[in-house]
Amino acid sequence: MDIKITKARKSDVHEILRLIDELAEFEKLTPPDEKAKKHLVNDAFGKKPAYHVILAKIDRKTIGYAFYFYTYSSFLARKTLYLEDIYISIEYRRLGTGKLLFNKLIDIARKKGCGRMEWCVLEWNKNAIDFYEKLGAKELKEWKYYRLSLE
Amino acid sequence: MDIKITKARKSDVHEILRLIDELAEFEKLTPPDEKAKKHLVNDAFGKKPAYHVILAKIDRKTIGYAFYFYTYSSFLARKTLYLEDIYISIEYRRLGTGKLLFNKLIDIARKKGCGRMEWCVLEWNKNAIDFYEKLGAKELKEWKYYRLSLE
Repeated sequence: MDIKITKARKSDVHEILRLIDELAEFEKLTPPDEKAKKHLVNDAFGKKPAYHVILAKIDRKTIGYAFYFYTYSSFLARKTLYLEDIYISIEYRRLGTGKLLFNKLIDIARKKGCGRMEWCVLEWNKNAIDFYEKLGAKELKEWKYYRLSLE
Repeated sequence: MDIKITKARKSDVHEILRLIDELAEFEKLTPPDEKAKKHLVNDAFGKKPAYHVILAKIDRKTIGYAFYFYTYSSFLARKTLYLEDIYISIEYRRLGTGKLLFNKLIDIARKKGCGRMEWCVLEWNKNAIDFYEKLGAKELKEWKYYRLSLE
């Protein structure tokens, strides 16, 4: 099967939202409500995008996506590409789509002059962790990650 | 002592770089070289800032800083304020500067419509961890943080 990786356009919104619902189910999280979905669309496809989206497609069928944005490493004095979400539809696993999406992200990151790519993974997601380790990524074990809710 | 929190301007660069060297020593890391320092300055004070800086000052003396930028939570469909670095000069500790810098960041985050503030801390930095816990921040224990070096 011929898998193509492309930048998402506004016309892809419906397919992206369908996969987001699927991911929420997979991660055992509540899917975004209608208001949140509207924000997600505006924040990716508005004038000042807060994040970017690439898609994996087979023919016209969208089978996966990656959401990313740029952070900054003051230590390297260079940008970092941060991968916020990556998801491949369950029925299209084991076709190498994850690798294709990662290769595209690495390519984008290098072109932007990033020194690193970073992301988080749920600790029970062993398949993903194996994949990341094979890529050569390292877990940052000496750091603790903190969050303050402002809601 | 009267501590003021202000947005950094280009004229503050020399003082910021002095404190960065101090932080590198404190965290047992190599300080940035001249090329990296040039990047740090351009990336904060150029046309499209990759990160932002607020400063703590006593009179004209800069005693601390925070570097931050905006990330994005696809789960909340809202921006996050990510704190990349916070540092207070060793000789000016225990004056409440950390709390003032955090309060300012929380204020900035709320004004930008962020749903969260996030940051990392080295696991041996117990003083900082105690401070974050008192603020009401929670460690994200169920996530693993991965990094792929592109250098």
